[in-house]
Parts: sequence; C-alpha cells; structure tokens
Amino acid sequence: SRSIRLAVIPGDGIGQEVVAQGLKVLGAALPQDVKLETKSYDLGARRWHATGETLTDAELESLKDHDAILLGAIGDPSVPSGVLERGLLLKLRFAFDHYVNLRPSKLFPNTTTPLAGRPDIDFVVVREGTEGPYVGNGGSLRTGTPAEVATEVSLNTAYGVERVVRDAYERANSRPRKKLTLVHKNNVLVHAGHLWKNIFDKVGAEYPDVTTDYLHVDAATIFFVTQPERFDVIVTDNLFGDILTDLAAAVTGGIGLAASGNINPSGAFPSMFEPVHGSAPDIAGTGKADPTATILSVALLLQHLGYADEAARIEAAVAEDLTERDAARTTDEIGDALAARVSG
Amino acid sequence: SRSIRLAVIPGDGIGQEVVAQGLKVLGAALPQDVKLETKSYDLGARRWHATGETLTDAELESLKDHDAILLGAIGDPSVPSGVLERGLLLKLRFAFDHYVNLRPSKLFPNTTTPLAGRPDIDFVVVREGTEGPYVGNGGSLRTGTPAEVATEVSLNTAYGVERVVRDAYERANSRPRKKLTLVHKNNVLVHAGHLWKNIFDKVGAEYPDVTTDYLHVDAATIFFVTQPERFDVIVTDNLFGDILTDLAAAVTGGIGLAASGNINPSGAFPSMFEPVHGSAPDIAGTGKADPTATILSVALLLQHLGYADEAARIEAAVAEDLTERDAARTTDEIGDALAARVSG
Ligand SMILES: CC(C)[C@H](C(=O)O)[C@@H](O)C(=O)O
Ligand SMILES: CC(C)[C@H](C(=O)O)[C@@H](O)C(=O)O
Repeated sequence: SRSIRLAVIPGDGIGQEVVAQGLKVLGAALPQDVKLETKSYDLGARRWHATGETLTDAELESLKDHDAILLGAIGDPSVPSGVLERGLLLKLRFAFDHYVNLRPSKLFPNTTTPLAGRPDIDFVVVREGTEGPYVGNGGSLRTGTPAEVATEVSLNTAYGVERVVRDAYERANSRPRKKLTLVHKNNVLVHAGHLWKNIFDKVGAEYPDVTTDYLHVDAATIFFVTQPERFDVIVTDNLFGDILTDLAAAVTGGIGLAASGNINPSGAFPSMFEPVHGSAPDIAGTGKADPTATILSVALLLQHLGYADEAARIEAAVAEDLTERDAARTTDEIGDALAARVSG
Repeated sequence: SRSIRLAVIPGDGIGQEVVAQGLKVLGAALPQDVKLETKSYDLGARRWHATGETLTDAELESLKDHDAILLGAIGDPSVPSGVLERGLLLKLRFAFDHYVNLRPSKLFPNTTTPLAGRPDIDFVVVREGTEGPYVGNGGSLRTGTPAEVATEVSLNTAYGVERVVRDAYERANSRPRKKLTLVHKNNVLVHAGHLWKNIFDKVGAEYPDVTTDYLHVDAATIFFVTQPERFDVIVTDNLFGDILTDLAAAVTGGIGLAASGNINPSGAFPSMFEPVHGSAPDIAGTGKADPTATILSVALLLQHLGYADEAARIEAAVAEDLTERDAARTTDEIGDALAARVSG
C-alpha cells in the first residue's frame, strides 16, 4: 500500500490556520489506500524568541526523511528582518536544492482583479530558487558609519541556470500554447544576463516546438498589467521571480490565491509547498485568512508526488467554489467547503 | 539677459521625433528674454555602427559645458544588448553623477489605465541613479562553457544612499501629503537592505513632519496595482526603481506619458532629462510616437533650471490636452497642440 510521509511547518501568524485547512483538503483528496503520515515542526518566530534557534542541524536531517514539506508562513515583525528568512525559509530552499520555484497564476472566475476588462490569465512562473542575488553573498564594511559600503553579490552558474531553464522548456512543451518567455535585465546586468540568454537560446534548440521570447524585467511588469494573456511559461532569476510573482498574484485575485512549490526535481531532497503570502499577523486568529493559496499548494504537492488526478480535483474544486463564494466565509468554512467538494 | 545652453541627444528610433516636439514646446514655454542655445550630439545605434564609438571623451567634456541635456531614446535591436546602455546611457548617468533619478507618476484625466476603478494616482519615485546593481561590477569566468560562473555586484555606500534619501525627504516634505516610502528587500538583501533602512530612519529624524513607511519590493508591486493612491514619494535603489517606474508608467496611462530626470542636485554636472520609454523602432517614422513623455521631461528640465512657472504651464497644457485628445493625432500634431497651449 502507498504512503506519504509529510513534514508540516505551520509557522507563524495565519500559517497555523491555513495549514490546518490544507491538511483537511489533503486528507479528503487522497485515495483511501494511501497512508498519510505527518510530522509537525515547531519553527518560526515563537521558537526563535524562546530558544534563539531558527532550524537546527538535527531538524534539517529529520526533514530530509520525508516525501514532501507543507509550509504555512514564516515571519513576525518582532523578529529582526532577515533572521527567519535567511535562517529558515531560504535555508530550506538552499539546503534541499529547490531550484525550481514554481508559481502558477490563473485568474479564476468570480475573483477580484484590479485589472479592468478581466483579461484571460493563465501562466506559470518558473523562478530559479538557489542562485542569483539570494545566495547571501555580500557584506558590509565600516557598518553603521558614514563610510559604510555594503555589497550584495548575485551568483549565477551555467549548471544552475541550465537545469532550471530546461525544466521551464519541459513545462512549456507540455502545455497547449508551448510558449516560453525569459525575463532578465541583460542590457544592464550584462554578465548574468548573457549567461541566462545564451543558455536559454542553446537549450531552446532542443525544443523546436516551443516559441520563445525575451523581455527585460521592467518591460515584463508592463505586460503583466496591460497584456497578461501573452504569457504561458516564464523563466527568470530568483529576485526577478520574487517580484514578478507577487505582481502576478495581485492581478489574479490577490495573494490569498497564490500557490507555490519549491521543487527539487531530482527527488534527492523533499520538495516544499507553501502559499506565496506571508504570516499576516494583523489578521491571525480572526478567521479572515484565505486558506485557498495553501490548498492550491497542496494540489502542487500532490502533482509533484504523482497524484495528478487528485491535484486536478482540488483545482477544479477551487474553481467551482470561487464562483459561489460568499465573501463572509471564515478560514475554516472555506476549508470545509473545499474538502467536501474534493471528497464528494 | 538669461540663457540656457542645452545639449540635445535625439538618439535612435522615435527619439528623433519626440525630441523635435520637446524642443518645440520648450521654445514656446520659455520667456522671450531667455536665449536658448542648443547643440545636438549624434549618438546612438547609427553612430556606433558607423564608427564603433558610443561616447568619446571629447564628447563627454563638451556635454559638461551645458546647463542641461535633453535625450530622446537610445537603442536598436541591431546593437548587442548592453553596448549602448553601458557605453552611453549609463555612462552619462554615472559620469555626471546623476544620483537622483526622478520619475513622477500621475494618472491624468482621459488616459487609459489598465486598472479598474481609475484610482487617484499621483506619486513620484526617487530612484537612486549611481549605485546598486547598476555599477557594472561583476564578471564571468569560463564564459560560454558548462562551468561558467557569472556575477553581478550591487554596491551601496552610506554616502550614496544618504544623499538620495535626503533628497527624497526634501521632496516629501514639500508635498501636501508629506509621505515617504522606502522600497527595498531587506529581508533577503540584508547588507544593502540594512544600510538603506538605517539611513532612511536616521535621516527621517530630521523630518518630523514626514510620515514614513517601508515595503519590500515584491509587496510594493502589489500596492502599485491594488492601492496606488497610498503612495506619495517613494525612494528606492537603482534596480528596484527601474522596475517600479515601468510598472508605474503602465498604470498611469502607459510609457508614452512617463517622464524622467537624471539629476545632479549639486549642479556640478548638467542634469539629463529623458522619457522613460525606449526607441520603439517598430513605430519609428510612422508618426505614432507620443511625444508627451518627452514634453513632460522638458517640464522637469525647466523646473530644475528654476523656471517653475513655465514647467507648471507645460504640465497644465498636457492635462488639458489629454482631456480633449483625439487618438488619431500624430506626433507632430500633439507637439503643435501642446506648443499652442503653452504659448497661448
Ligand atoms: C519571505 C521571502 C524570503 C520570500 C522570498 O523573497 O523569496 C517571499 O517573498 C517569497 O516570495 O516566497
Ligand atoms: C535602457 C536601460 C539601461 C534603462 C535602465 O535600466 O535604467 C531604462 O530601462 C530606464 O529605465 O531608463
């Protein structure tokens, strides 16, 4: 009989609440014969305040021993900026070599978009997850003095770029429109930009059916609001991907619906699934958090683990639910409604 | 009697056409007693193809000998990416220490915005212009091989950050809403981010009337489309400013209206004014280019040189003209209409 060993990191603020709904829907979606084993990890702001720890080596080892990780949200204003991001969230992405940061954007019916005319939006951003300006390479000299100099180094390797670009071509090739857009800023960041562009062109020769396009990141933001229907699959670096996917979430109904997967396609380490949103401490405990982004992240998790039908059922349930959704429903009620649709 | 010595760099594509209209309106706006002397520089793609030169030392020297520079647009697909950007456009910004890259965004009446509900948008981005990821510090090793490594270094100094942050506080303090938002990504780019945030807080102590706010760049893009009315003045680094101002242009009627000033507030070097848009070779020569962004850049130029009333007249003329604008008007007709309003 089949089984899934799932590590769960609820985290801070609304993280706890949305993860509970994610697990509810996961349970409802899984076939009866699949045994789900979950292990919860107490990580995040509270833990750091209590112990000064962000993620111990023992926890990192223990996390490895799972098929996947479901994460809610990490962060609290009481923790200095960067401590939990670098010490926990990015540490996991780097330690588990999550080089494909997958972020689909779809404008579901009956959702609010700030865009007039409700364009037809259905694209996926393949954001590089282990390189670029996120490597933590940099420092500061004469810190806090008028003579301070601070640097941040973006590191890009042919190895790292080629594998994510290849993944993006594969995804584009398997979609009906077969279109892949590279986003970078190769007219200014010429070294990294030329590396990306050369590899993009080189790998592209192996995918003759995929139509390609290149956009500077600044121009890409324009098209996200004026012509988002032009995009199918986008591949981009870690920082540009961070920026573009928040904008994508905003134009497709908001951060309450944006799912993501931090994927290690080789399977050497567990992949991690999380909503794009943060811990939103201002609404924690009010029942106002929308668990849909987490539930859609559970669908990505199922897809990754080979449960494609179950993943599709969750996505269909979300689409149906949104067309009938009552704005006043609580976190729990949304989770219940989706679980009922998925199992029904 | 007063005079303005203006260097003009029409550049490529529609650059020529829009600059012609900018000069037309400048002539119409200036008081009779002001003598306008212009000197045109043949720089850009054609020049590079013909001579291999982007900007000679002699030209750089000669440009210094002016009160301001008006630039149209630089770039053509026939020139390898980065050559003209690094060799000409950014060279000028760096050589003339244009540390305030000023980009106002205003949603004029009767313009097309992709945003539903036409929010009230009127903010200005103060983009740092001489540091950050734009310094050109980086390189590549084993270029073109599977073992390539490429870096880009973002350089940030207390000196460079403080002067632009101070400029932004001054601007915020002189506006009715007196609100300043710092945009960075200090939870990931911790070294540069902390330098920016510390200086932002320190200088803020000198401006007790200015309300301050901090946003991560990804979150800022969300607010640009969901709540752009929350912004008054934004200060940010060179790359984030590049991205945000294209998005700002998109939500306020498009790149055809977005003006910018590359300003050296000390006056040690001439400041340079240019539309945010590029050379748009696809519409060059068709009469479809909108010269308004260049004309609004001329208003920023006049403002910078102390002709505040004339600058205000141009802005008012644009606002009036837009309410009556016929979509079919040519570049030349728009220039004529604005010149007539300004002089009338
Ligand atoms: C919290 C932060 C480190 C993270 C990122 O920048 O990647 C977040 O914004 C995201 O997009 O997942
Ligand atoms: C052309 C390019 C070098 C430039 C920049 O990135 O600054 C442009 O996008 C701009 O915003 O003025």
